[in-house]
Amino acid sequence: MNASEFRRRGKEMVDYMADYLEGIEGRQVFPDVCPGYLRSLIPTTAPQEPETFEAIIEDVEKIIMPGVTHWHSPYFFAYFPTASSYPAMLADMLCGAIGCIGFSWAASPACTELETVMMDWLGKMLQLPEAFLAGEAGEGGGVIQAHSSVEKAGLIGGVRLKAIPSDGKFAMRASALQEALERDKAAGLIPFFVVATLGTTSCCSFDNLLEVGPICHEEGLWLHVDAAYAGSAFICPEFRHLLNGVEFADSFNFNPHKWLLVNFDCSAMWVKKRTDLTGAFRLDPVYLRHSHQDSGLITDYRHWQLPLGRRFRSLKMWFVFRMYGVKGLQAYIRKHVQLAHAFEALVRQDARFEICAEVTLGLVCFRLKGSNKLNEALLESINSAKKIHLVPCSLRDRFVLRFAICSRTVELAHVQLAWEHIREMAAAVLRAQGEEKAEIKN
Amino acid sequence: MNASEFRRRGKEMVDYMADYLEGIEGRQVFPDVCPGYLRSLIPTTAPQEPETFEAIIEDVEKIIMPGVTHWHSPYFFAYFPTASSYPAMLADMLCGAIGCIGFSWAASPACTELETVMMDWLGKMLQLPEAFLAGEAGEGGGVIQAHSSVEKAGLIGGVRLKAIPSDGKFAMRASALQEALERDKAAGLIPFFVVATLGTTSCCSFDNLLEVGPICHEEGLWLHVDAAYAGSAFICPEFRHLLNGVEFADSFNFNPHKWLLVNFDCSAMWVKKRTDLTGAFRLDPVYLRHSHQDSGLITDYRHWQLPLGRRFRSLKMWFVFRMYGVKGLQAYIRKHVQLAHAFEALVRQDARFEICAEVTLGLVCFRLKGSNKLNEALLESINSAKKIHLVPCSLRDRFVLRFAICSRTVELAHVQLAWEHIREMAAAVLRAQGEEKAEIKN
Repeated sequence: MNASEFRRRGKEMVDYMADYLEGIEGRQVFPDVCPGYLRSLIPTTAPQEPETFEAIIEDVEKIIMPGVTHWHSPYFFAYFPTASSYPAMLADMLCGAIGCIGFSWAASPACTELETVMMDWLGKMLQLPEAFLAGEAGEGGGVIQAHSSVEKAGLIGGVRLKAIPSDGKFAMRASALQEALERDKAAGLIPFFVVATLGTTSCCSFDNLLEVGPICHEEGLWLHVDAAYAGSAFICPEFRHLLNGVEFADSFNFNPHKWLLVNFDCSAMWVKKRTDLTGAFRLDPVYLRHSHQDSGLITDYRHWQLPLGRRFRSLKMWFVFRMYGVKGLQAYIRKHVQLAHAFEALVRQDARFEICAEVTLGLVCFRLKGSNKLNEALLESINSAKKIHLVPCSLRDRFVLRFAICSRTVELAHVQLAWEHIREMAAAVLRAQGEEKAEIKN
Repeated sequence: MNASEFRRRGKEMVDYMADYLEGIEGRQVFPDVCPGYLRSLIPTTAPQEPETFEAIIEDVEKIIMPGVTHWHSPYFFAYFPTASSYPAMLADMLCGAIGCIGFSWAASPACTELETVMMDWLGKMLQLPEAFLAGEAGEGGGVIQAHSSVEKAGLIGGVRLKAIPSDGKFAMRASALQEALERDKAAGLIPFFVVATLGTTSCCSFDNLLEVGPICHEEGLWLHVDAAYAGSAFICPEFRHLLNGVEFADSFNFNPHKWLLVNFDCSAMWVKKRTDLTGAFRLDPVYLRHSHQDSGLITDYRHWQLPLGRRFRSLKMWFVFRMYGVKGLQAYIRKHVQLAHAFEALVRQDARFEICAEVTLGLVCFRLKGSNKLNEALLESINSAKKIHLVPCSLRDRFVLRFAICSRTVELAHVQLAWEHIREMAAAVLRAQGEEKAEIKN
């Protein structure tokens, strides 16, 4: 394929992308396929001779789309949102064409420098303490990371990890942390790292940073604050208080690829002292040396991360921040929070249901009053019907349904339809349960 | 930006991408900027109000391009190639629109299943032993990983790593490995993991798998074979013998994002027993559970890797393999190898230069006969002139220049021009050295 065919096919692909996203509401949100469906649909080996683009794009609808879970459907309320916006897609196209690998400053200076400045922009949007910014002479700074889980990090590092018991609002508090630290130290262990979560995956609860922070500070523990989902909301002044206490943290991260319209992957992490990272990971083979590297002026991001290579991901941030503006991004966050509260209000109007955790941002945890079995049956019936898609969580051994506002295009009408659908499914499940009880009685 | 504006801007972006790649030869391969250049060119904070697309695309030329190292210029001969092809870019656009996160089978079945089948296709293209393929009932299989270095992995895992001394052809041989193992065991250490490299970064040398493999097998050591760059060549029958001995390996990887026209990132890894990976990393929070997960039929790739999230990267493989066909990909590899030999022949014709390692694939290691200082001066003068871009390596304390055939569009004429340019630079450096010596004599 040469440039002129790419001009033609690229434009067709742009239309396909727009068609897909404009028409996504008409596609069943969760696919019907069974495990192994795809293998039988395609040849067992790569073709020897080239095939045409037409053949491939036809197969996208025949082979790929039937197996896609449509994350950007307005009927997708599962997990947490994953960002999708046109400016981010445009930037990613450009990233693909430039196709540089940003493992060192010299490998493509713009790739490194735009990332540093975008991470400063984003830090300022959140009103992060100055110590986390790179600026022209700071000791801190931000980096875009791959996105992982702290439990897996513990497994890899060979570090024992323990969950600190939370309070009635699912928050880590001073007393529980203090108690765990004392028990560990008495057992001869050396606590050195605490992760506080702002906006947990299960129920979007918030650890108490203002209590936890000073303890970490006193005890010389590294405090990492993970606001993977919730972090995007902190660009709104009315939610910024949720980040209070971050000044005690040594490192902080959240995922603009969740809720800030920057397509996956873009996990933003800041540290107060970047030498803490670069000192741990520094490797300098001759083939990566460049003339500026010991000048102290440049950033070689490969020392900040596990992988060696890195894409030009800050382009996505630049395009999105500029094309939405901070106000546009704030409006987007606020709309999602309002929709969550609208759903919460609907649930509260139905006495058969209960809300299981405080609704702060875009996630509503709810369940039928009754057994776990009943709620498992409800979720099963909802996800089998495939009109909407939800995932569950476990809160203190209670099986709970999560309703997360996800899609960029979700409106109140979708939320209302989803709720009507959930009520119908609930009625059927309750009826079946009633019949079962009646049978047992008989 | 709505869908209709995206249709318009997306098509403009497609043209920009094609213009950039068609005109890349006219751009200076390495930028003139100094560290910190970008910060002064853009505002210190994100804009409050939205900006126009025109303003942003104008800034791409003004702010980004002056700081880009043009990896796809036909005058870029540094590092190793990074793949760039139009079919891969088209697939990445589609990946952006679908925008699913493939951490579990249910999160988007097509994303998982296409990857498994593409890794089988690719394994067959390389004639990997059957044990590495997933097939319908195999115990092995492939996965697309982030790309990292074994030294960093050692640091993170807290594992002591040692380099095995290589032979005259820079290859690991039986005797050196055996000796290191015995010394380690005598010191009370427990050797458990050996990495053999096929196509080292420095000089594209090949460890002797047929010697190393049986030792690992006897001693019960995990043998990982890393063919990051060279692996792509094994799709050609005439280079497949370089992979002989892989049957002794427990795991194998190479990077189609280097030399197989699949844009970054796409690092392909296979294991013989996938339970070795999934057993180490398994984490199953309730919110990621799905009904098929314990069926034994499905793959949840998050258990195979460090990160949780994953993009739909196998689309790039599918598009590229189909649009080039195996024959097209073989032709591409062969052309690059021929160009490397053409460059080698030019170097050998000039008695002032020497070839420093056997040229097997697309990399030529060469230097001026003389001191390291002389060769450092040569590289410095080449990279300062910025007509071409090279990086060095160190071979047994000798400073060596690496000439890697990189760009998809590089032709013999570019290689010849590059060589003429290198000779001119060498003449100037030798003249300067001669004058210096003359001065010392006087």
